[in-house]
Amino acid sequence: MPPPERAEAGAPRPRGNELGEHLDDGMIEVKVNLDDAPGEWLGYVMELLFEAGANDVFYTPIYMKKNRPGVMLQLLCKREILDSLQSILFRETTTLGVRYHPLTVHRLGRRFIQVLTEWGAITVKLGTLGGEVVQRAPEYEECRAIARAHGVPLKRVYEAVWKQLEKS
Amino acid sequence: MPPPERAEAGAPRPRGNELGEHLDDGMIEVKVNLDDAPGEWLGYVMELLFEAGANDVFYTPIYMKKNRPGVMLQLLCKREILDSLQSILFRETTTLGVRYHPLTVHRLGRRFIQVLTEWGAITVKLGTLGGEVVQRAPEYEECRAIARAHGVPLKRVYEAVWKQLEKS
Amino acid sequence: MPPPERAEAGAPRPRGNELGEHLDDGMIEVKVNLDDAPGEWLGYVMELLFEAGANDVFYTPIYMKKNRPGVMLQLLCKREILDSLQSILFRETTTLGVRYHPLTVHRLGRRFIQVLTEWGAITVKLGTLGGEVVQRAPEYEECRAIARAHGVPLKRVYEAVWKQLEKS
Amino acid sequence: MPPPERAEAGAPRPRGNELGEHLDDGMIEVKVNLDDAPGEWLGYVMELLFEAGANDVFYTPIYMKKNRPGVMLQLLCKREILDSLQSILFRETTTLGVRYHPLTVHRLGRRFIQVLTEWGAITVKLGTLGGEVVQRAPEYEECRAIARAHGVPLKRVYEAVWKQLEKS
Amino acid sequence: MPPPERAEAGAPRPRGNELGEHLDDGMIEVKVNLDDAPGEWLGYVMELLFEAGANDVFYTPIYMKKNRPGVMLQLLCKREILDSLQSILFRETTTLGVRYHPLTVHRLGRRFIQVLTEWGAITVKLGTLGGEVVQRAPEYEECRAIARAHGVPLKRVYEAVWKQLEKS
Amino acid sequence: MPPPERAEAGAPRPRGNELGEHLDDGMIEVKVNLDDAPGEWLGYVMELLFEAGANDVFYTPIYMKKNRPGVMLQLLCKREILDSLQSILFRETTTLGVRYHPLTVHRLGRRFIQVLTEWGAITVKLGTLGGEVVQRAPEYEECRAIARAHGVPLKRVYEAVWKQLEKS
Repeated sequence: MPPPERAEAGAPRPRGNELGEHLDDGMIEVKVNLDDAPGEWLGYVMELLFEAGANDVFYTPIYMKKNRPGVMLQLLCKREILDSLQSILFRETTTLGVRYHPLTVHRLGRRFIQVLTEWGAITVKLGTLGGEVVQRAPEYEECRAIARAHGVPLKRVYEAVWKQLEKS
Repeated sequence: MPPPERAEAGAPRPRGNELGEHLDDGMIEVKVNLDDAPGEWLGYVMELLFEAGANDVFYTPIYMKKNRPGVMLQLLCKREILDSLQSILFRETTTLGVRYHPLTVHRLGRRFIQVLTEWGAITVKLGTLGGEVVQRAPEYEECRAIARAHGVPLKRVYEAVWKQLEKS
Repeated sequence: MPPPERAEAGAPRPRGNELGEHLDDGMIEVKVNLDDAPGEWLGYVMELLFEAGANDVFYTPIYMKKNRPGVMLQLLCKREILDSLQSILFRETTTLGVRYHPLTVHRLGRRFIQVLTEWGAITVKLGTLGGEVVQRAPEYEECRAIARAHGVPLKRVYEAVWKQLEKS
Repeated sequence: MPPPERAEAGAPRPRGNELGEHLDDGMIEVKVNLDDAPGEWLGYVMELLFEAGANDVFYTPIYMKKNRPGVMLQLLCKREILDSLQSILFRETTTLGVRYHPLTVHRLGRRFIQVLTEWGAITVKLGTLGGEVVQRAPEYEECRAIARAHGVPLKRVYEAVWKQLEKS
Repeated sequence: MPPPERAEAGAPRPRGNELGEHLDDGMIEVKVNLDDAPGEWLGYVMELLFEAGANDVFYTPIYMKKNRPGVMLQLLCKREILDSLQSILFRETTTLGVRYHPLTVHRLGRRFIQVLTEWGAITVKLGTLGGEVVQRAPEYEECRAIARAHGVPLKRVYEAVWKQLEKS
Repeated sequence: MPPPERAEAGAPRPRGNELGEHLDDGMIEVKVNLDDAPGEWLGYVMELLFEAGANDVFYTPIYMKKNRPGVMLQLLCKREILDSLQSILFRETTTLGVRYHPLTVHRLGRRFIQVLTEWGAITVKLGTLGGEVVQRAPEYEECRAIARAHGVPLKRVYEAVWKQLEKS
């Protein structure tokens, strides 16, 4: 099961299809350095952390002491779930310490529209800054499903969505 | 047009050629994760951010969900221009959220001297810690211009500057 | 659908559960540099290439001209499927050229055994060099399924397998 | 001066605006590992190598002995200019050895078209595989010039080009 | 001399062989971007920083302006030694500014046990979360010494330790 | 014990202190992808491979399937020792396949000189291209020993060597 699609500074998708632009002061950035966990385990840990509600999880290659190619795990989450995510980190990785600090996140307003392509409708996430639409992101999973079902390159699907967006 | 030469924790070049060592508490570190912007656009975004006054802008490779090779954009700036830089990030990249937190920067004192090489004068930036000179950095753009004009390897130009510095 | 589990220099799993150590001279290493494809598409391309029979597919972060954070796609495949994989690369990415050269692969002999843990049996792939067992790799997907089903950390499952292996 | 725009497996832009799909067996991949050259010099070396005719030049981060964060310089070039590029590598970097091996490059057919946007005409490079158009790449420098001149986000310019392409 | 083995969020090894789980609010994360220091020097700087008491030191590859492959040095330390580590950074690298901010570190409880393998005893560091043992890390330097002395693969030594741990 | 200092395309240090510029066609590039070996083991493997005669060994971060941060081990060696190095790779890492291909290495001529600094003599390796000296590399281990013994920054030692070289 792939981790759920979730924006970098993701908020729960609003019922009414809309969420206003806002500053969020309750976010935490968490970091763990790993030089004794194989990559195989880390793909799985990413899965678990997304499922447990992390807003984002990603890895950075780092160069550690004693010529060790290591990995830094980073995640963003709401303060309320920090403890449960730390528990996953301690149980599933090999770290003895988890470090973190607070962050502010400036999030665009969001709403969702549908555009119609030759292969069917695709959701597009709009991001608004001061009321103006500055981002228009076709939903990856829908584009991918269409690419697979119709045997067309994924990039063609994206381009078809952009064409419809430009028209409107 | 290349972005302007600017030190990592760059301050405006002082009129009197000198700036004292100091702590700066008004700096912000800004981060954005990108998995849906091509590298081609990101080179351009770096340009714009430097022009708009960022002290530093750089990219880190990151491993994002769903096997996506992504990029983390990081920048350092004064709090006063945070809003205008965020506006560039939202308009020119594909992100829906920008995260940031305050930083302290300890900056060396700086002053500039000229050294004379066989190809002409080159500016050297000196960094002072408690009054002692601990850094001596030849200005890259001047070294590069001389290397091009005289058809000598860039490393020879740097070595020539270091020789003059050692003499003094 | 995650890409099928397949070893780095993977061969089809033999009927009789065994494959001898051998040199393979018919492999090709393929590379493509990408600075104008978003990471989002590249996770999908990896999926398609594995499904089409690539032995391995992976990405490396690269620094390209004009300050572009880019990605090098690399894959290993049998010469017989080079054309069909190239077709995927040309259709799904943004490249105008695909480069490649032949490789030799020294592959360990392989056979599969079962070990019994407290949560059930797990397959272990053995790698033999000159007849001697030098690798013992628990099958990731089986370990992961057990970890999920029994709510135990993945690392505990691996450790349980190693304990059984050491006993034998 | 930025390095000239040149495709990854770039060929000289044909007079008649067109170049057929072909295999090129005369290419060389060159690599150099660097742990004693500062990054500052390496940006300059990239410039020189492109100017001297390299088809591509890029850097990969590597982890070298003694905890050294190093860099691997890679370049692709025609065999005819291998010697002159090696001379640049030896004179401008700190390496004592340059390694290389031959490559085959499969290059798409190329031709160039113009599309008209609200801000003026933009060249698009088309890539053809077996006569079919599989790539459509707006010329970066032209898009960038328009973005700067008209104060619009670069991504808007690309999207405008894609809209025109989809129409035709 | 390799840098001393020290856990990521390392605390002085307690006399009584035990340290309780705790939150540490007195840690600092320090960062420096480097584009004009060769990798050769940076391996040495890592050594010095560990010797001076840093809890962790590591490098991340970054993409800096003007096509420079750069390196970000990161370190974690107690606030009390921030000044002395900064002095090393200013004297041994080429930076003109050092940036930092406070961190909280959640550290597991730790204690050390011995397990007996066929080649002798090996220390294992146990990490406890809420009293439960969640980490069991064989001491690398002891495993390495045994691997060298007995001519066995390092991974065999680790596996032997894990077997003993599972038994208990 | 740190691995022995050895140039990237290193040749045995000649008795008569000199080695001519030459092409070497007997080199092999070996690669292994690793997603199930912890970084801790890989620092040790690097040590063993250098001791067994590899000309160079280094790691590259790679993004592997299933969201795994992996590592590519690369090494360069003479064909004569390929088998013994492969044996180390199979015994000490977790790979089931090792891939390789031949390389040509163009090596500068080399000779060694001594320069006298205020802290004593330091060896400098000169690299010659067509008889002309194009590289001048102070021996790292000697510079490091002086830096430690005299409590001076390593960069000062290098700069002192360069000053002497410029004089001559």
